[in-house]
Amino acid sequence: MAEEPRFLLRLYFGAGRQFGPGKARLLALIEAEGSISAAGRGMGMSYKRAWSLVEQMNADFAEPLVDSTRGGPRGGGARLTGTGREILAAYGRLEAQVRSAGGAEIAAIEARLKP
Amino acid sequence: MAEEPRFLLRLYFGAGRQFGPGKARLLALIEAEGSISAAGRGMGMSYKRAWSLVEQMNADFAEPLVDSTRGGPRGGGARLTGTGREILAAYGRLEAQVRSAGGAEIAAIEARLKP
Repeated sequence: MAEEPRFLLRLYFGAGRQFGPGKARLLALIEAEGSISAAGRGMGMSYKRAWSLVEQMNADFAEPLVDSTRGGPRGGGARLTGTGREILAAYGRLEAQVRSAGGAEIAAIEARLKP
Repeated sequence: MAEEPRFLLRLYFGAGRQFGPGKARLLALIEAEGSISAAGRGMGMSYKRAWSLVEQMNADFAEPLVDSTRGGPRGGGARLTGTGREILAAYGRLEAQVRSAGGAEIAAIEARLKP
């Protein structure tokens, strides 16, 4: 999807809590697909793993990031909460800032690589 | 050493080439210790692993980052080349830029965590 990522940025908040590109992409896909399992599939991730990440995010934050109904006749649905959209947007801005503020340094390192 | 890292930033240059905090710290310790094995020990890394990372960096870049003499009566010594110092410095500036340019977004995400 889109261009190959040029960097990975993962945030650490202590007590094992982290937020990075995997969770951000899962949130973005949940918003797009309306389903945790469909979002997980989009990342080649098991249903169980996708749910576990969502539960972890919902537990880490003061308010849940994802609002979901598990199972049921229509297989359940999911969407981001207001907090979920804010976190995803803040992380996206952060990545954009690294790209712009750090672009020159990244290019300087790249320029020294073997051609 | 110093404060707990609040984020991890790893750069990807394609063809399996990456540069991140592990290699940066290894370079910094090589500069401080004058020895690849001592630098590896400082990171709880085996001699073999530390050498392998140095060889990888030296192969990835157009000029070596580390200049070393392996073994010998004094156990060999190592120091950063000019290119090595430049790469380490550029990566350090990049981290500082994330910290400053991205500080507000990181704080915004952190503020939403469960207290």
